[in-house]
Amino acid sequence: MKSKTVYLAFDTEKKIQIVRITDKVEQAVRESGVKEGLVLVNPMHITAAVVVNDDESGLHGDYLRILEKLAPYSADYRHNDTGENNAAAHIWRQLMGHQVVMAITGGRLDLGTWEQIFYFEFDGKRSKRVLLKIIGE
Amino acid sequence: MKSKTVYLAFDTEKKIQIVRITDKVEQAVRESGVKEGLVLVNPMHITAAVVVNDDESGLHGDYLRILEKLAPYSADYRHNDTGENNAAAHIWRQLMGHQVVMAITGGRLDLGTWEQIFYFEFDGKRSKRVLLKIIGE
Amino acid sequence: MKSKTVYLAFDTEKKIQIVRITDKVEQAVRESGVKEGLVLVNPMHITAAVVVNDDESGLHGDYLRILEKLAPYSADYRHNDTGENNAAAHIWRQLMGHQVVMAITGGRLDLGTWEQIFYFEFDGKRSKRVLLKIIGE
Repeated sequence: MKSKTVYLAFDTEKKIQIVRITDKVEQAVRESGVKEGLVLVNPMHITAAVVVNDDESGLHGDYLRILEKLAPYSADYRHNDTGENNAAAHIWRQLMGHQVVMAITGGRLDLGTWEQIFYFEFDGKRSKRVLLKIIGE
Repeated sequence: MKSKTVYLAFDTEKKIQIVRITDKVEQAVRESGVKEGLVLVNPMHITAAVVVNDDESGLHGDYLRILEKLAPYSADYRHNDTGENNAAAHIWRQLMGHQVVMAITGGRLDLGTWEQIFYFEFDGKRSKRVLLKIIGE
Repeated sequence: MKSKTVYLAFDTEKKIQIVRITDKVEQAVRESGVKEGLVLVNPMHITAAVVVNDDESGLHGDYLRILEKLAPYSADYRHNDTGENNAAAHIWRQLMGHQVVMAITGGRLDLGTWEQIFYFEFDGKRSKRVLLKIIGE
């Protein structure tokens, strides 16, 4: 069995930021030497989600508008009594699905035609990390 | 380490379709020869989700009604300006959880009493694929 | 390759209960002897979710209030025609993300600063189980 751990680092400039990371995951897979296996893509921050979906800016805006409708960022939350203002970000990341595990086949990410991997940060303006854990053979 | 890759193919006839795939995943696990491991069940299309829940048609209807309430299929979405009409399908698949990883123990899917695996397609009437990636020993 | 399977058991006393399980997952990882790998943390009951987020009671209440807003527990659901009253619990568990896979690095859970693992039970007052499946080397 082979394994490889990579910590992707981001300096998110905006409060809400969407970053395509497919190429970085692909590169880590290539460098791991794993031909058949799995790669976990997990945000290490709990106001962010890793999402597999379409690379289309209109859709990304639709996501943000629906999340704002379901759990408005500026609504009243008990978590924000602790001095934070990011309760909605913690909620949004759960609604969007938190993390993904993707397949490695023949030494490459095994993606459908339109599958792209994104990091959705909902409370940025800080340095953030995404953990890649690759295992296989 | 052993691994096996299977692409399940579906000719979805309806726009919204729910297909139970537990038996197909179980069969792939059996054929893999893996006794202890993991199986990733990932839709290769970004308007679909793989969901583990109850095999009960009333509940499946409840899911669809809640999704329609949260993000109405025919509402106005920017993604649909691209000529698509499936923006809500992309949103629903995220709300329902995208994908699952299940355990293999003693050569079988290690399921709780009521756990069944489903493919939820929200923009069907096309040929669709689900990727199974099995790794273990 | 090494693997280990653990079934965590809970006697949930309340209908809705949140249990922090980070330490139990960490203990299972240590006992597995796996240094580099993955651990699947999967509720075996379909009215529950395993969630990675903040250990902050205000936020936990915010989650429950948002879920109640999106899919009220006492609303009318077809699933409840079967004699159950837990349709919303099945829905909430999907909205919260169902399950997680976490990384093992250097023999320990590879967690971000604020990542804690929780079992969210939405239809308790019964004995419940969470499956841990550890694979790696």
